[in-house]
Amino acid sequence: MQKTKYSSGILQYIPFFYVIWSDDLLSASEIEVVKKSFEHDESLIDSDKNTMLEWLKRDHPPANTELKNWKHTISNSGVKLVESETYPLSSFSQKLVCSYKSECPFNEQLKHIEINLGIQPNHYNHLFEVAVVHEKTSNYYNASELDALLKGEHAEHLDAFRALLADPIFDWQIKRNKEDFRQKVLEQVKFLGAKGYGAMAYPKAYGGIENMPAYAHIFENLMYVDGSLAIKFGVQVGLFGGSIQKLGTKKHHDHYLQDAGAVKLLGCFAMTETRHGSNVRGIRTTATYIKETEQIVIHTPGKNDNKEYIGNALHAKMATVFAQLIVAGKNEGVHAILVPLRNENHELLPGITVEDNGYKLGLNGVDNGKIWFDQVLVPRENLLNKYGDIDTTGTYQSEIKNPNKRFFTMLGTLVGGRICVARAGLGGAKMALTIAVKYALGRRQFNDSVKIQEDLIMDYPTHQLRLTPKVAECYVHSITLDHIMQAYADDTSNDKRKIETQVAGLKSIITWFANDAIQECREACGGKGYLIENRIADLKGDVDIFTTFEGDNTVLLQLAAKGILSDFNSEFNSAGFSSVLKLLGSQISDKLTTINPVYSNKIDKEHLFNTKFHRHAFQYRTRRLTYTLAMRIRSYIKKGMPSYQAFLKVQDHLLALGKAYSHELAYHMYVNFTENIADEKNRLLFEKLGTLYALNQIKENAFWFLEQGYIGSTKSKAIRQRVERLCSELRPHMEVLVDGFGIPDHLMTAPITN
Amino acid sequence: MQKTKYSSGILQYIPFFYVIWSDDLLSASEIEVVKKSFEHDESLIDSDKNTMLEWLKRDHPPANTELKNWKHTISNSGVKLVESETYPLSSFSQKLVCSYKSECPFNEQLKHIEINLGIQPNHYNHLFEVAVVHEKTSNYYNASELDALLKGEHAEHLDAFRALLADPIFDWQIKRNKEDFRQKVLEQVKFLGAKGYGAMAYPKAYGGIENMPAYAHIFENLMYVDGSLAIKFGVQVGLFGGSIQKLGTKKHHDHYLQDAGAVKLLGCFAMTETRHGSNVRGIRTTATYIKETEQIVIHTPGKNDNKEYIGNALHAKMATVFAQLIVAGKNEGVHAILVPLRNENHELLPGITVEDNGYKLGLNGVDNGKIWFDQVLVPRENLLNKYGDIDTTGTYQSEIKNPNKRFFTMLGTLVGGRICVARAGLGGAKMALTIAVKYALGRRQFNDSVKIQEDLIMDYPTHQLRLTPKVAECYVHSITLDHIMQAYADDTSNDKRKIETQVAGLKSIITWFANDAIQECREACGGKGYLIENRIADLKGDVDIFTTFEGDNTVLLQLAAKGILSDFNSEFNSAGFSSVLKLLGSQISDKLTTINPVYSNKIDKEHLFNTKFHRHAFQYRTRRLTYTLAMRIRSYIKKGMPSYQAFLKVQDHLLALGKAYSHELAYHMYVNFTENIADEKNRLLFEKLGTLYALNQIKENAFWFLEQGYIGSTKSKAIRQRVERLCSELRPHMEVLVDGFGIPDHLMTAPITN
Repeated sequence: MQKTKYSSGILQYIPFFYVIWSDDLLSASEIEVVKKSFEHDESLIDSDKNTMLEWLKRDHPPANTELKNWKHTISNSGVKLVESETYPLSSFSQKLVCSYKSECPFNEQLKHIEINLGIQPNHYNHLFEVAVVHEKTSNYYNASELDALLKGEHAEHLDAFRALLADPIFDWQIKRNKEDFRQKVLEQVKFLGAKGYGAMAYPKAYGGIENMPAYAHIFENLMYVDGSLAIKFGVQVGLFGGSIQKLGTKKHHDHYLQDAGAVKLLGCFAMTETRHGSNVRGIRTTATYIKETEQIVIHTPGKNDNKEYIGNALHAKMATVFAQLIVAGKNEGVHAILVPLRNENHELLPGITVEDNGYKLGLNGVDNGKIWFDQVLVPRENLLNKYGDIDTTGTYQSEIKNPNKRFFTMLGTLVGGRICVARAGLGGAKMALTIAVKYALGRRQFNDSVKIQEDLIMDYPTHQLRLTPKVAECYVHSITLDHIMQAYADDTSNDKRKIETQVAGLKSIITWFANDAIQECREACGGKGYLIENRIADLKGDVDIFTTFEGDNTVLLQLAAKGILSDFNSEFNSAGFSSVLKLLGSQISDKLTTINPVYSNKIDKEHLFNTKFHRHAFQYRTRRLTYTLAMRIRSYIKKGMPSYQAFLKVQDHLLALGKAYSHELAYHMYVNFTENIADEKNRLLFEKLGTLYALNQIKENAFWFLEQGYIGSTKSKAIRQRVERLCSELRPHMEVLVDGFGIPDHLMTAPITN
Repeated sequence: MQKTKYSSGILQYIPFFYVIWSDDLLSASEIEVVKKSFEHDESLIDSDKNTMLEWLKRDHPPANTELKNWKHTISNSGVKLVESETYPLSSFSQKLVCSYKSECPFNEQLKHIEINLGIQPNHYNHLFEVAVVHEKTSNYYNASELDALLKGEHAEHLDAFRALLADPIFDWQIKRNKEDFRQKVLEQVKFLGAKGYGAMAYPKAYGGIENMPAYAHIFENLMYVDGSLAIKFGVQVGLFGGSIQKLGTKKHHDHYLQDAGAVKLLGCFAMTETRHGSNVRGIRTTATYIKETEQIVIHTPGKNDNKEYIGNALHAKMATVFAQLIVAGKNEGVHAILVPLRNENHELLPGITVEDNGYKLGLNGVDNGKIWFDQVLVPRENLLNKYGDIDTTGTYQSEIKNPNKRFFTMLGTLVGGRICVARAGLGGAKMALTIAVKYALGRRQFNDSVKIQEDLIMDYPTHQLRLTPKVAECYVHSITLDHIMQAYADDTSNDKRKIETQVAGLKSIITWFANDAIQECREACGGKGYLIENRIADLKGDVDIFTTFEGDNTVLLQLAAKGILSDFNSEFNSAGFSSVLKLLGSQISDKLTTINPVYSNKIDKEHLFNTKFHRHAFQYRTRRLTYTLAMRIRSYIKKGMPSYQAFLKVQDHLLALGKAYSHELAYHMYVNFTENIADEKNRLLFEKLGTLYALNQIKENAFWFLEQGYIGSTKSKAIRQRVERLCSELRPHMEVLVDGFGIPDHLMTAPITN
């Protein structure tokens, strides 16, 4: 038995006081937690309580000599810290008292502090200078429960699909030569088609189960196999098949849809041209109707007006070609026409030229190519005529009279693809983060001179800051994308325009997030992350282009911002636009209350962790940006500037609004989901992940909130500290969190994760 | 002759007023410029002056109806705007008066305003609704003059070298198979060796010209050919040859140095181990001296203690191996020993195992491999013995008694390599930016409905914001790296430790900058940037690892921060460390004056463009971060926390300080350079680039400056506006600016740049 000057009553609290004061995060409410524990602690006499109350004064913290006494008391105890215990600090305290005194009952009040202050072993294990029984990872949470929450109602489909991915056809290997790689991916796509997965989103009559949301999940899982596979599969069944499904009518469905889904008819989606990527309305390919023969002539007018970057261009038998439809000499705008490209022997048909796009930064298993049409004839029936048709008399017909609206309705069919691209990006981020986290839990580097073993790199605060907020963001966006897909797939919805705007924004922030996450993982794994065998390199190369295709992110964000400005319905450039902006401005202005200085400097944990605060901050930002944007544009227009130019002047502001709105939306959807998790333990975890996401977002945009006076300096720093602290709190659960992504073991082939 | 209600005197000023008021950037000092022009303008009568003075009141701006009148006056004039004129707005004004009145002399006062307000055609050409004779690029500056300023005293070497790079051996081609690629790069390296470029940094006696600074420039230029070539060349002559030069003595130089430089003796640099990358001191390979035979036994103790990621491992005949030197049973710390790897027939020598690292994200032309040694014997002479030797009696000798200092002295030899890596990263960024800018000057997308031609994407504000600050940063870092290399190459300097610290920081910020720049260029070029043929993809893959090798950036920045904290000399973890921190704290505290609110909200152009403001902001940030860091660490230590743990707790703060210091340093060096540019026109341009860099840095870290109250909200917004404005002002010069990087035409092979 050692000697100590402290009473038993005080002794049991000493580890707690030492932990509390070694850091500077003690808030008023946390002091209350500790005080309350004294009050309910029957083992304490009044003089003990008074002594300890003295130690709880934020303005008069205990002297450093006192802290050193505590430290010696702890170090000299010879007690081991066992991280895997349910209440490691309370257990440690109990054993500490035992080592000095004869009696040592377990004190429930200590447990109460430990829980309510969220004290984690990795916050204090380095402070004690005692033997530590380390725990690399905690099993407090259960990965398959987390996975189940993310899978939601698609669990059955996903489990079957993940099992299928164990088929040797999906074995990962390095493929440098594009011809071999494309051949391999083609076989995989055909295999999936044969198993029925290509038709998942199609009606039952064509081999499907009409389940687009489940399809999106499967699409994400394909990223764990290979990015090229996901994209080629998406081109075949989502873009080519999808265009037939959404733009065609029964005759096209009956002819082609089943074969497209079963990957028996290979096709491509020929929209983009070399000179027209983002500006689809300006494409130059023409589809001229010949009344006499009831044929359509597909033609590429200039050398550089070819279709560009068309996935499946080298394997396809047919293409959905977007072209300016000219009927009786009048341009009726962009329409889609099915054009056969090759015959049964895979020879190009007359008038068609295809050129390989060659090697790319990634996705080399996808055969992208350029296509030219030289007066190619197809029958009138090949026009995908759901939104515009040519009747037997050679007259153009459409139920949508406004050509602008017609164009956007047709483009609306791309929206599902955008959700899937975001989903695939997210899958890439999850894969990279899983690899990086597992590596960080095995890799050691540097140490304290007294230690034999070097530290795990996952225990470095900078490493935690690199990876943990990104893991949290993956959880948030998993839910976000589920919700937006459900909204999109709901045919009864009247909010189509709004959903399209939201998808545009979410696709942008999520694909950028995915790229950042993968890059961070590459660097976090050092040179090992650079080796192809460890998978992150390919993910980086593959996901990179997601920020560009299916809509360039900067263009999409401007689209989103314009949608917000017009409240998702009014047309731009119209005469009344200025008054729309004025109305919008005054509406928002009423809601933008002045921020109270007490609020802008409130740093209590209860406040910072409150979803109300997060929601308010996100909403304030969106509203304020909308208001100032509307006012700026209006002022330019009033000075006589054409609205096109006015929008150019505020381009950066548009991007900021698009991002702000999308993050608000993502958090909103996520919180709605977490509030309904039945199991409390998991609900609290999901809430914590949401809090980390929200605080990290505010931290990343702190300059703006500070500029607006929405947060003060103290609050800005407190938010930063809370982000660091949350990362540290989640440290023991990192492995479970990434396992919760549900990436099948048979696809985790990176040698550094073993 | 049209009609107008304005007098000739006023009429000539109308385009100026319209331009000024269409924007919101008019500052007090700019109003003064305009007022002064009135005063000196003899063509004005008093009533004209009074009318126009009314139009200059910031608090009572002209009514929108007045602006519309101006606009109509301009639009109805039928005058063309010719952007290529020397003073386009003044000329336009002159012609405007001519179109309404009979006499129209050129007014010098207008020219005065145009110059002093920095009004550029691209600020107003969209406002006028008149015919515009566009200028894609301006020839006001001369690219070869800019190039000459960047080449400095190395012009002769560089010009010769760039001409040599036209040799067909450097022709760019896609190489997917690593064996072919490596063979090609090997031939190129041998070619450069034969031409004498390998020995540039070596003494004359060994075939060189002892010019390390010129070598660094050449190294940057190799990136324009291929990243693998640069890196393999650097491994051979910089790391392998460099280790012989810097760690060896005359016997080694005489034996090996000439052949290393001429690339006749291929070698590698075997430092990193699988389990020890950043923590070199912990490497496990042993070099045990056997007194009896005067031999050293090189041995890899465990399966995972192999040398890892060693460049040239498959081609090398010899390696500089870093190992724990054990003499008479005592570990004398890490030393370098020359170890032959293969015989003349390129067969591995007994006891040596080499394994290919396989495919990587980039640099696949470099043969990286793993090496194991199984009791390999080399003679005593093979110890590179400049800093530590074994004498003939078998006793270890070193002039540097402190093992710690000895270790860091040896590692100091890596510093030159770090500068070169940063230089190569910079070269990658320049190449990517050149491609992206040229593409943006050719690519059109979208347009105003009234225009026939779509807009150049370089004319989009967001595109300018993406690329222009990065072009400016390339200029800044070109100068920075020149200066730091000169300091490093100066053998008489006593500041070795300080220079090493500075290099650590600069290498980190520049390689990160390079990666960001290349990524931005990839996205700015859309799908075209993704094609290998357009070069950016390979640059991305190659430069990616620069953030990791030659020192991981996060580790280097911590090193830099610790150097700053210790004022570049004192040892850490020593007993007196806490008092060093205390002293440092009080020293800085005296200098950290409170920021005056007038200063923190000063937004005049003269102030925002003043280098004094930039320097002060950078310095304030470094000092403040140093002070708060020192105080935090000291407080932890006083509470009894071991210093190793205290440093862990502040890891993120260390990174922030390392970055802040490095940016301050870069700007400091750059300004010293620009102040001495003789030619005024170019000096002003360089100053403008420096201003853009400085303001952009403050903008990027605005959250911190706002938190500290160093800048207020108004100033933060003004800085953002100035960054946008500077990008717009530099828009006409973008092509000349990237041409100023001096990348030879014969290496600009990307099809999108043509």
